[in-house]
Amino acid sequence: MGESHLIGLDYGSESARGVLVDVRSGAVLATHTHTYTHGVMSSALPDGTTMPLGWALQDASDYEEAAAAILGALGRGRSVRGIGLGFTASSPLPAMADGMPLSCLHPGVPHAYVKLWKHAAAQAQAERISARGGDHLADVGGRLSANSLLAKAAEMAEEAPTLWAEADRFIEAGDWLAWRLTGRETRSAAFAAYKADWRAGSGYPVDAVPGLGAKLGDVHPVGAAAGALTPAWRERTGIGGEAVVAVPVIDSHSTVPATGAVEGGTLVAALGTSAVYLLLDDVGRPLPPGIEGRAFGGVVPGLWCHEAGQAAFGDMLGWFVRAFPRGDGVEISFAAYDAAAAALAPGEAGVVALDWWNGNRVPHGDARLSGLFTGMTLRTTAADLYRALLESLCFGARTVVDRFIDGGVPVERVVMTSGLSLANPLLMQIMADVLGRDVAVPRQAQLTAVGSAIHAAVACGVARDYGEAARRFGARDAILYRPDPVVGDCYDALYRAYRTLGDAAPTRDAMLALRAAAPRTTSV
Amino acid sequence: MGESHLIGLDYGSESARGVLVDVRSGAVLATHTHTYTHGVMSSALPDGTTMPLGWALQDASDYEEAAAAILGALGRGRSVRGIGLGFTASSPLPAMADGMPLSCLHPGVPHAYVKLWKHAAAQAQAERISARGGDHLADVGGRLSANSLLAKAAEMAEEAPTLWAEADRFIEAGDWLAWRLTGRETRSAAFAAYKADWRAGSGYPVDAVPGLGAKLGDVHPVGAAAGALTPAWRERTGIGGEAVVAVPVIDSHSTVPATGAVEGGTLVAALGTSAVYLLLDDVGRPLPPGIEGRAFGGVVPGLWCHEAGQAAFGDMLGWFVRAFPRGDGVEISFAAYDAAAAALAPGEAGVVALDWWNGNRVPHGDARLSGLFTGMTLRTTAADLYRALLESLCFGARTVVDRFIDGGVPVERVVMTSGLSLANPLLMQIMADVLGRDVAVPRQAQLTAVGSAIHAAVACGVARDYGEAARRFGARDAILYRPDPVVGDCYDALYRAYRTLGDAAPTRDAMLALRAAAPRTTSV
Repeated sequence: MGESHLIGLDYGSESARGVLVDVRSGAVLATHTHTYTHGVMSSALPDGTTMPLGWALQDASDYEEAAAAILGALGRGRSVRGIGLGFTASSPLPAMADGMPLSCLHPGVPHAYVKLWKHAAAQAQAERISARGGDHLADVGGRLSANSLLAKAAEMAEEAPTLWAEADRFIEAGDWLAWRLTGRETRSAAFAAYKADWRAGSGYPVDAVPGLGAKLGDVHPVGAAAGALTPAWRERTGIGGEAVVAVPVIDSHSTVPATGAVEGGTLVAALGTSAVYLLLDDVGRPLPPGIEGRAFGGVVPGLWCHEAGQAAFGDMLGWFVRAFPRGDGVEISFAAYDAAAAALAPGEAGVVALDWWNGNRVPHGDARLSGLFTGMTLRTTAADLYRALLESLCFGARTVVDRFIDGGVPVERVVMTSGLSLANPLLMQIMADVLGRDVAVPRQAQLTAVGSAIHAAVACGVARDYGEAARRFGARDAILYRPDPVVGDCYDALYRAYRTLGDAAPTRDAMLALRAAAPRTTSV
Repeated sequence: MGESHLIGLDYGSESARGVLVDVRSGAVLATHTHTYTHGVMSSALPDGTTMPLGWALQDASDYEEAAAAILGALGRGRSVRGIGLGFTASSPLPAMADGMPLSCLHPGVPHAYVKLWKHAAAQAQAERISARGGDHLADVGGRLSANSLLAKAAEMAEEAPTLWAEADRFIEAGDWLAWRLTGRETRSAAFAAYKADWRAGSGYPVDAVPGLGAKLGDVHPVGAAAGALTPAWRERTGIGGEAVVAVPVIDSHSTVPATGAVEGGTLVAALGTSAVYLLLDDVGRPLPPGIEGRAFGGVVPGLWCHEAGQAAFGDMLGWFVRAFPRGDGVEISFAAYDAAAAALAPGEAGVVALDWWNGNRVPHGDARLSGLFTGMTLRTTAADLYRALLESLCFGARTVVDRFIDGGVPVERVVMTSGLSLANPLLMQIMADVLGRDVAVPRQAQLTAVGSAIHAAVACGVARDYGEAARRFGARDAILYRPDPVVGDCYDALYRAYRTLGDAAPTRDAMLALRAAAPRTTSV
């Protein structure tokens, strides 16, 4: 038997990445990145049509262009057993029955394009759907997200009813790309469960949006095959072999098996511009108060996975160094502040921040909340404030962990991923100290794409199950940060102050009043 | 009759200033400043003896050196009718019966020196005296300040009992200097009433500190003569004429008649590194809750004067430009931030600060409280935070004004003084907008020294009363800032958020917890 390969894809907001994995050794042989031609369209369409604040669209043609580039670069002339697909979600688009995006027919109409995950203009629809209630809201804490497929569908149905009627399909971009690659329309249980409140027994809550039911499709489990690469795509990319395309998964979720987490009790965090926390659980427990959602089988088959997040994470550090630069350029400022912050003793300055620069998700779920610093004296330095920001990000993480534990969901192991986790050892040591737990950081920069390859391995039968696939293809090496108990006592005191401030109604009342009074329009 | 003059002196923390005033025209003919040789000693004595954090001492010889320099520069060869003296307080020293400071006998003992007004190490003594209670606490809200003469006397009696027993006198530095200049020991009603709880009927609360009663002296009213300049001082300075030295007054209080305020209803603010608010009242009303103190006759004879303050004012702006510099040097940074802040619409950014970088005086009276910023988003700029600091200083001022009005003390006119008031028209316009009142800023940089000259004019009989003296020698020209009602509505909303945060117990609980947990020792 000759060489054979897996390809894992990771479709992000600005670009897509791919890894080529050797089936026998499990090694990543090559990576390739392709930046989208149109990227995120947040102010105008290509023809100049403008959009209101809060919109974020994409052009589906970017996805096919990226697939051709990456699959060609990694797979041309090679035998590829399986292709996995991690994708942003919910990023749905309206399409015709043959898969043609409505944006091809109506290039000047914003509602005809992909609404990217962070499109924030469907808040009113989300609130109306939440207000009507329904069993499907039980697993999202009674509160539908404005980023969900349901809210985005309702927005289109209300604001562009003719276009909505014209659309045969309303489909996640990941499912749409799998359809294009295989010629077969499927709907991933990952997208359906997490972004459209689909449940195995009851299906989609189709009553939430008039006409939506007829535009959806059959849901397929994670780890199943969506189909094989079509002859046209084989020709376009030069790929040989079975080339089974796996049912796609949510990009942030794809990292979970890549870290080796395939059983209950492992918390996997993706720390990027914002932060996502995923906690696998063997048992279907009630959603802990303040945690944002849970679904069954969407991350790894047979397991529940709870989801929570911080609305801003690395973004806040970027804000600080841009607002208060130290030297020329962001990198130099980061280096200066990280060095100065590392020289401080934990809690030395007595300053604490609330990490709410982009609103709060856990536990308040309110995008209008805002950042806070307190404890400043005339001796406080800029580095003190920067370190307080680092600490506040970890206090936000601890809030999530504490909510899980208080809600009875076991947290036995903590894994933190992303470039930021690898680049900032100070932040990771503070994280271990604040959580009072070991924090493992896998030494692997392409975890999402590797996770997609793991889904491909299961879907094409290279591995028997996720346990085997994770062992063979997941990250093998991690940096372990161990908590310092003495420092932990100091952080306990700071964390109590953080919670005292954040849990107090007057703090939030003041923030809401400030937001309402501020003439400067803000968007998420 | 030939030319005749008044000299007004202003003894501050780092230097003393004097003005030479022409009796006939009322014009300031000359000014002279002298910087102290020893200045503020906060870490070590001249011989190297170190002191704990929070200490702030002075060497009394600096005062005589400054008097010789300033009186000589302004008065040599001139006929001087009166000399007035504004002095920091409470800044007491222990002395022998002939006036020799104990520091001359014990140059290596910190307790032998002048304890400057901001010496903060007598907090425990202040609390113990407050806990014992007594009628004398009624006019200071039941809470003796650590800066008072009583607390500083108690500190010395406890910590240096032998030295305390050796000291024949315990005297305010202003009274001590008047004693040296005239050869006659007096005690000013201004110092006695505001800094030692002295009352016309009951005298000093001498039981508060064992042995204190015998070390004090007879109290003389403001506007009386302490005595005439001694022959030795006439020779040393070359001064001719009667040279009557007026009973000294507190430096910040000396500005009041200099602004023309000699009747009830006028609020005079001195906005420096910290801020002091003095409100004259014709009637002896109960101390409004949160206001720090009141006394009769200490500022202008026959009137009550309430006193309140902000623990940090200009200091906070200095902190900001030093922590987050914009270009080389503080002046360039100030110019850049003031220009950027002036370009913002009021409340535009939705950011608010609590102006507590050096603790809070009104309404909480707690030096352990700290600064706060909230409302930040990823779009907030450094200039937004700087403007929020400016606004917070004005919200702090409004808190003081509101407490007066809620307590039934009329506020009919607002006058704000100091270099900062003259240098920062943006701050003064925000002040008028936030207060919703006209704010007058006298165009006179040496108001404290001019005020001392007014006291001298009354003491030596050049003027019949304070009304006449203020008209003849006080500031004649003021910049008037008028409130914009539209902007005022916006500030009302921000002020409500400021009060919501500051009045909430959890905010203060968190600040106290942070202070208690911070390893970095802080001093006031």
